[in-house]
This record gives sequence, C-alpha cells and structure tokens, in this order.
Amino acid sequence: MPEMRFNLVTQDWVIIATERAKRPEDFIKKDSSRKEIPSYVETCPFCPGNEHMTPPETYVINGEKGWQVRVTPNKFAALSSEGSLERNIEGIKRSMSGVGIHEVIIESPLHNMGIALLPQNNVRDIIKAYKDRYNDIYNDPRVRMVIIFKNHGEAAGTSLEHPHSQIIGTPVTPGEIRHRVEESMRYLDVTGSCVFCDLLRDELKDGSRVIMNGEHFVSFIPYAALSIFHTWIFPKRHHASFGSITDGEISDLSNILKGTLSKIYHGLDNPDFNYAIRSLRDINGDIEYFHWYISIIPRVTRMAGFELGSGMFINTSLPEKSAEYLGNVKINS
Amino acid sequence: MPEMRFNLVTQDWVIIATERAKRPEDFIKKDSSRKEIPSYVETCPFCPGNEHMTPPETYVINGEKGWQVRVTPNKFAALSSEGSLERNIEGIKRSMSGVGIHEVIIESPLHNMGIALLPQNNVRDIIKAYKDRYNDIYNDPRVRMVIIFKNHGEAAGTSLEHPHSQIIGTPVTPGEIRHRVEESMRYLDVTGSCVFCDLLRDELKDGSRVIMNGEHFVSFIPYAALSIFHTWIFPKRHHASFGSITDGEISDLSNILKGTLSKIYHGLDNPDFNYAIRSLRDINGDIEYFHWYISIIPRVTRMAGFELGSGMFINTSLPEKSAEYLGNVKINS
Repeated sequence: MPEMRFNLVTQDWVIIATERAKRPEDFIKKDSSRKEIPSYVETCPFCPGNEHMTPPETYVINGEKGWQVRVTPNKFAALSSEGSLERNIEGIKRSMSGVGIHEVIIESPLHNMGIALLPQNNVRDIIKAYKDRYNDIYNDPRVRMVIIFKNHGEAAGTSLEHPHSQIIGTPVTPGEIRHRVEESMRYLDVTGSCVFCDLLRDELKDGSRVIMNGEHFVSFIPYAALSIFHTWIFPKRHHASFGSITDGEISDLSNILKGTLSKIYHGLDNPDFNYAIRSLRDINGDIEYFHWYISIIPRVTRMAGFELGSGMFINTSLPEKSAEYLGNVKINS
Repeated sequence: MPEMRFNLVTQDWVIIATERAKRPEDFIKKDSSRKEIPSYVETCPFCPGNEHMTPPETYVINGEKGWQVRVTPNKFAALSSEGSLERNIEGIKRSMSGVGIHEVIIESPLHNMGIALLPQNNVRDIIKAYKDRYNDIYNDPRVRMVIIFKNHGEAAGTSLEHPHSQIIGTPVTPGEIRHRVEESMRYLDVTGSCVFCDLLRDELKDGSRVIMNGEHFVSFIPYAALSIFHTWIFPKRHHASFGSITDGEISDLSNILKGTLSKIYHGLDNPDFNYAIRSLRDINGDIEYFHWYISIIPRVTRMAGFELGSGMFINTSLPEKSAEYLGNVKINS
C-alpha cells in the first residue's frame, strides 16, 4: 500500500509510492562513457587566464597563487543590472523592465573540483562569498529577493562544466516564496512555533532520516521528501536569513555541505543536482515565522505530467532508506 | 533589456530573457540516431494481443478490428485502488494510506501513432474516454481530485513508447490547485470576472500568440508563458469542469488538440512533452471563478536551480515569436 505523507513546509501531501520503489543504488547512472574531467580547459571562460572572457569581477577571494573564489556578472544575465524599474499596464497585461542582478560565483580555479572534492577551507570561502554577495545585493534598491542556487550537470540545467553557483536578485517576491511565508505565518499563528524549528526538532529526535549532524547544521532527507534523495540542510539556530550566518556557523556549514555533497557524489556516482538557499532578507530584529535552509535536489528522476499538472509529487523511494544509504557512504573528511 | 510579464493564472512574474533567446528552430533536437518506430512491438504491454500483460480493462472503445482506445489500471499504480483511507497523526507527522485511482489510457492499438498522427475520429475517441473515466472516477467517495495527464518521451518522464495518457484520482486536493482556485476566487471578487475568460478575450483580441482558433477551443502561447512553447488550450464556453464537455465540443477539441500537437510534432521534430488537464469536479450549477483548460509543456529546456528555488520561471523565448513559428507549421488536416 503506498503511503501519503504531509510536508509541513510546502503544506502539501507527497505520494510515497513504495511499491514502485527501486533500491537507492538503482539510481546510480551507469554511464560508462563518462570521461575524466581535466583540471584546466583552455577554452573555459571560468579557468584562470581567461578572466577577460567574463565581465569584470564584483568580488574575489585571493589565495596564495591567485584567486580562489571569483564572482562576476553573468555574461548572459536573465536580468539587466542597468536601467530602472519601469512598470507598464495595458488592459489586463502587466509587464515591467527586467532589471536586477545576476552573477556567477566561480567556486574554484580548478575546472574539475566541486564542493564535494575541494578542501574544507575552500568551501568556507565559497560560503563566505555567498554571504557577502547576498547581503550586498540586497543594498540595490530595485531588489526584493535574492536567490542563491547551483546547477550541476546537464540534467540540472547547465552545460558549463567548471564548478559555479549563481545568485539572482529579482525586483519582485516570487509567488511561491510569498506563499510559503504566508503558510509559515499561519503555522506560527495556529501553534505558536516556527514550523522549521518544530520539523528540525522532530527529525533530530527521530534520527532515521539524518545524514550528518554538526554543531550548527543538520542535513537530512525530510519525512515527506518531494523526490528521491531530496535533502535539506537546516541551521539549528533560528533565523530567517542566510545573511545572518556567523563565521563559526560558516565553518560548520562548510563541513556539512561538503560532507553531504560528497556522500551524494560518491554514493550516487556524481549525479546531476541542484541546490538553492531559501532565505528572507536579513533585517534588524528577527522574523519569528521563517527559518532559512538549503534544499538539495539530485536530478536522478524527472518531473512528469502529474507533478506539472497538480504541483503534487510522487516519490518512489522511502526517505528512511535513502537517508540510511547516504549515511553509510564513507567519505574522507 | 529583458522583460518581466505577469501571468494572471499563476499570479506570478515570468522573466522573458530575450537577450539569451535563441530562434524557435534552435530548440529542435538534432538526434540523428532517432530510430524509426514500428507499428507493433511483440513485447509491448500496450500492443494488441498482449492484453494479459495489463490488469483487466475498466473501459474500452471498440472499432471495426478490435479496440481503439483501452483503459486499464496502472500495473505500477502510485495509489492503490484497494483499501480505505486511513489517516494517522504522530506528533507533528501526518500520513494517510495512499488510496485512489491510477489508470492508463492506451490511445491506439498502433505502437507508433500518437495524437499528432492519428485520424481525427480516433482523437475524438481518446477525449471521450478521458471524459467518461474522469466523471466516473469522481464517483469514488475517496477521490477529491482527478488529474488527466500525458508523458511523451524520456525527458517527459516515460520510458514506455506506446502512446498513452494517465489519469489519477487523489484523496486530497493538491495544494497548487487549491492555491490557484483561491487566486481565481480573489480575482472574481476584485474584478467581477473569471480570470480565464478575461485572459482568453485578451488573447483573441490581440491574436499574436494564437496558434489555432476553432469553433469552441483556442490554442495559444500565453502572454507570460512559463517556458519555451508552453501552450494553453482554452474552451470558449466558461465552465469549471472538463467533465462538462459536450459531443460538439469534443469534436472541435479533437481538431485543435491534434492540430496543435501536429504543429509541435512537425515544427520541433517530435519533441518530448507533457500535457495536463486543469479542471475542477463537474457539479450541478457552475463555478463562476474557475475555467478548465489544457496545458502543454514541450520539454525542450530543463527546469534549473532558479526555478526550483524560487518557483519563478525564466523563459528564453518571446511568446509571440514561438506562436508565429508554430502557427506557420503546415499540417495536413
């Protein structure tokens, strides 16, 4: 009998179709044609020496032999950093100029070293770059919402091999985020608690879906995970904004993020994946109802017509089994 | 300068990133290895003669030489048709038994003939089967919402080549559908109109995004299309439920659906695609605020981290150009 589980954060039911389930290891793509990736590619715009192929950098962290993390405007930006926000109404049609910020965070000078493989202090620098750009982009008066995300591999929507993340500042609040904020406000009104704090406490107490448990962060496959190996990383300290992260927390997050992505990398043989940081703006005084977190989505299955037509998800794996599988993957740390 | 357009139905902004745009024809996948598909495959569970490979049929439309359309329970059902709905609460965790209906609509006895290629009277039979199963499944007291959808091709989430659609009856209302209902109620409250009727009137008046305009149905690429070649088919008569479709309307829809899918098939060289029917239950007396429609999503690009992390969409094509391209594709009708 399949089971339906209620996801407290999305406030929707997920179908856990265990009868269709395969074993976690069945999702490893057996791609014998996978090629060895070199550490330097002459034509790659993100490799050292090719800095002229990208717009001038907005941020850099230097190491002993040159830059370690480099942030530049996206050459093919989805939103323009120039111009002012002009709104237009024509009958029932509304449009506005597509202004905002779209930058690329080049995570390493090495073409073949993503977060799963980099030394932990390099991952710390990447998170520090995320934080500094996140807070700075909110200073742009046109920006309402800043989203940090990563596309790794073709199935995750990128064709650029060199490890990089992206950061977009939009001139509106995306509807889905506004909707989740409303739901979390409602939860606070009804229960008196932060829904994310409640969920985290429950996952820690249960323990069967926890992948890594650090001083400040926990990675786990949620009780009602939307898809196979769908993983969340929650900070233990309640705060609505990623922008509030402290140096000590950055250090612990670099360990948990690297460790979790390493387990995914080694356990599932380097699958394509996305992650995104879900967070509200850092303001003076905290917001009780929201709690920032990272959502990691390995792209081992595809969204199909049912998901697109209903917004509901069918997950063909049991979250406990997937978490156990990843938890048992040995990594060098 | 990119443009942002407001989608009245999803009530969200879409980034139309025209600077990153390619020409419509650039989305044709150049797959030289594409093989000729035979009309019969001995091992295919949906080909005639293999009826014993599927559960007994729940519905059939016969032609001169045997069945034309055949509906059977999905052998790998996401929801179980047996058992009762049991709810369970354990601390903050809620679950329920995964009961409901999950059927497969086999669209033709021919292994290689989808809606784009079938004669129009066969397409009429498929839509008739949709309607009859749609209304019948709502008679199951456990069912709250019925979703009809189609996955065509691997990128759309199916590995079964034989043309088929699916129908799922869920024991809850999916959150996204509830959310859209709420938004359309709000629109009616604010404006006094059905948002879908307003949008349809505007698209017909403008005309630049219309692909096909029939007696009862219109296919068009909406002003704020979420993705490339994202197409909607709207009925001209206001009704909340697909289940209310009349014989005359089925006849016109078979022409518009077949014609639109043919233009996508020939114009984009048989891309993978999904479609879904968005509809509420057919009840006595109509619901003023909702209006059923079909959403077609060619899977020529992928959802990436920004879409997954924000729920907002970046469309790298101009809807007018995509509609013009599809409108100009010649089909035999």
